[in-house]
Amino acid sequence: MRFDVFSLFPEVFQPYLEISILKRAIQKELIEVHTHNIRDWATDKHHTTDDTPYGGGGGMIMKSEPVFAAVESVLGAPPACPVILLCPQGELFNQSIARELASFDHLALICGRYESFDERIRQHLATRVLSIGDYVLTGGELPALVVMDAVARLRPGVLGDNEATDDDSFSEDGLLEYPQWTKPAKFRGWSVPEIMTNGNLGEQLKWKRQQSLIRTLKNRPDLLEKASLTDKDRKFLREYIEEQDSLTD
Amino acid sequence: MRFDVFSLFPEVFQPYLEISILKRAIQKELIEVHTHNIRDWATDKHHTTDDTPYGGGGGMIMKSEPVFAAVESVLGAPPACPVILLCPQGELFNQSIARELASFDHLALICGRYESFDERIRQHLATRVLSIGDYVLTGGELPALVVMDAVARLRPGVLGDNEATDDDSFSEDGLLEYPQWTKPAKFRGWSVPEIMTNGNLGEQLKWKRQQSLIRTLKNRPDLLEKASLTDKDRKFLREYIEEQDSLTD
Repeated sequence: MRFDVFSLFPEVFQPYLEISILKRAIQKELIEVHTHNIRDWATDKHHTTDDTPYGGGGGMIMKSEPVFAAVESVLGAPPACPVILLCPQGELFNQSIARELASFDHLALICGRYESFDERIRQHLATRVLSIGDYVLTGGELPALVVMDAVARLRPGVLGDNEATDDDSFSEDGLLEYPQWTKPAKFRGWSVPEIMTNGNLGEQLKWKRQQSLIRTLKNRPDLLEKASLTDKDRKFLREYIEEQDSLTD
Repeated sequence: MRFDVFSLFPEVFQPYLEISILKRAIQKELIEVHTHNIRDWATDKHHTTDDTPYGGGGGMIMKSEPVFAAVESVLGAPPACPVILLCPQGELFNQSIARELASFDHLALICGRYESFDERIRQHLATRVLSIGDYVLTGGELPALVVMDAVARLRPGVLGDNEATDDDSFSEDGLLEYPQWTKPAKFRGWSVPEIMTNGNLGEQLKWKRQQSLIRTLKNRPDLLEKASLTDKDRKFLREYIEEQDSLTD
């Protein structure tokens, strides 16, 4: 899979590509990442990539010309692959969009700086606008790395056997992961719950599911509405909530 | 403001701190970032920081001992500042949490790798668990950079006059930003809307607000439920939706 990344700060990408799973995926030629400096396509003397907004307001706006020129000179006009603009005004990136993007063999990612993009970039160059969350960042570089990392992990062969995504958070059932423990069994007087060390696999699976439900209820009740729940899950949650209510009465 | 970051890959942070707004904030001594390698506190011969989970299941779990040792040897036991664990099972980071965190002069950020953290880190060391979004990443390093970037921007003096956060996305009213344009007025036959170039400030302000409402409705209808809307906003949205409905009839 090939990523072409367009940014004013291409130098920030390399270090993250040189560690861990992405490094190995690149070495195994499962992933390749090409970074391009948008400023190289700014044609005026000062290599200007931003200008003031029409209609006033604070901040500077990223100009159309260098962004179109950069993307089209690398990928052709129009580009044959999806062109993703990272921007807080886009749809919210999630694991299901990551799975969708992982089905392409080529993606372009455009990172903004400044207050915003000229709207024509959004309308006539980008094929999709993604936001990684409801917070304001200095630029699209971290969002592009987030998208690349999440997508690359889903490509065949990128994760090793021991790194399976099967019961990862945000897997198909839409629940948060249950609590986990590793050795030592006792650390500073805090012990691993007996159920996780008693070897009863059936009980453990049931307990893990219940813990996933409780954690999702506590930290992300919004996810429960869309989660795939069985009748047993629903019954457990009803009883858990009743029990909690009676404790606080 | 001081950030202490605990990670198995401290080398990925520096390049992002050497560009743009964070670089300037560090030079002006408004921000300082100290990175620490958790592996330096692993005491066995192989500097092990992970181990298999109790109760089975795929993946490796980050061990308690080196994480507690790292954080406590740098920050004391217990640390006097908030200790934030970056983890997909946490509450969802957003601009309002960023504002809250920006009120502290010192934050610790713990980045995981592997499948998960030993639960005792979450229960007895972290004071807050944050997720930056509903997707699976290889580690907590990008989330820690996201939190640092979003928080640092909100500290006094970090942004210049021209970079004001006032009408940034996810500002107090909870709407997405309106479309923006910069020069040239015409690019490849695509013109800036006449209203943005006619100099009528009153009309422009009204149009911008309406465009924010439309964009939020289209891309992030979930935000509208929590947004601060006036009666005029609600009336506009009702009429806009009716108009769209009649167009598709």
